[in-house]
Amino acid sequence: MDSEPVIGRRGAHAKGVARRQEILDRAIEVFRERGADGTSLRRIAEAIGVSHAALLHYFDSREQLLVAVYAHAEAQRAAGNTSPVTPGVDSMVVAAVQNVEVPGLVQLYSTLVAAALESGSEVAREYFSTRFERLRAELTTSFREQQASGAIRDDVPAEHLAALVIAASDGLQIQWLLESSVELEATLRSIATLLQPL
Amino acid sequence: MDSEPVIGRRGAHAKGVARRQEILDRAIEVFRERGADGTSLRRIAEAIGVSHAALLHYFDSREQLLVAVYAHAEAQRAAGNTSPVTPGVDSMVVAAVQNVEVPGLVQLYSTLVAAALESGSEVAREYFSTRFERLRAELTTSFREQQASGAIRDDVPAEHLAALVIAASDGLQIQWLLESSVELEATLRSIATLLQPL
Repeated sequence: MDSEPVIGRRGAHAKGVARRQEILDRAIEVFRERGADGTSLRRIAEAIGVSHAALLHYFDSREQLLVAVYAHAEAQRAAGNTSPVTPGVDSMVVAAVQNVEVPGLVQLYSTLVAAALESGSEVAREYFSTRFERLRAELTTSFREQQASGAIRDDVPAEHLAALVIAASDGLQIQWLLESSVELEATLRSIATLLQPL
Repeated sequence: MDSEPVIGRRGAHAKGVARRQEILDRAIEVFRERGADGTSLRRIAEAIGVSHAALLHYFDSREQLLVAVYAHAEAQRAAGNTSPVTPGVDSMVVAAVQNVEVPGLVQLYSTLVAAALESGSEVAREYFSTRFERLRAELTTSFREQQASGAIRDDVPAEHLAALVIAASDGLQIQWLLESSVELEATLRSIATLLQPL
């Protein structure tokens, strides 16, 4: 289960944290209904039912709010997993299938990753660089252990397998959302076949 | 080599086509310098040095212009390949390495794919759905032939391999742009090892 990073100026105060969570819960609903594209912070505030100033009390910018909404939605999704799973193909398949079932989550993810590639989007860039680095490190460690125990093939570096599985999962969620004839779960599970020990 | 779809109202007239290509060439330069995020059609026109009305003569909307710019840039990139290659892991590796060398291309791709997932972006959605469908079909046919000839393993459906390789390539280009310690080419080439016949 992922821990949720606190992104916001007054996250340390309990009351502020509760209010901030409430804003994020309502922001997620807004994005599910309308999508994130082109929505100004002022219009998000209106839709949530707080003042523009109140929103700026918790988030420095639209980008910071959107990253916090994504982190919050992903933490909610991960919290729904009843049993902790070892990082690997199975955990990535479960996460991918859950992600595409949350309306707007993959859209928001894609929008923010695209923003992270643009100059001037330091909050998104920092968040997603760190997130990819953490995911790759966790998966690499796990694949290395599975290689050592003979559970998966060991003729490809664990780092490569980790980066490939994360990339394939991200890319397939997008292909599935654009064309639902793509078999998301079965296609991702085929990775397990490719990794079987020789 | 990809053929470049003509997207625009007067693409049929030779003079219009030439002027349209000229606009796209200059638009690509603008995006390479400034990125696509948040740039209005009016400001793109200013930066290119044409009137807003002239730009609207060739493109119905900002979204249509951006999709045309991407298609034009990808066609330019593909035209740079000296020899036609059979679709497969090798051709995907070559394309991925070339893509990340074109400033702004992966950013524009990511921005448009994210837009395609939002409602109300029918031009981007149509373009990328069709593009993914065509790429998957080409790769599936090629992998099926390679399976039949014994060049690659045949215990995973060719459709799955095609979707996975495209997804992995897309996802890895993004990871590489966010963190250049990711070995883009070597990691993608590891897919060839995973596909070796059993």
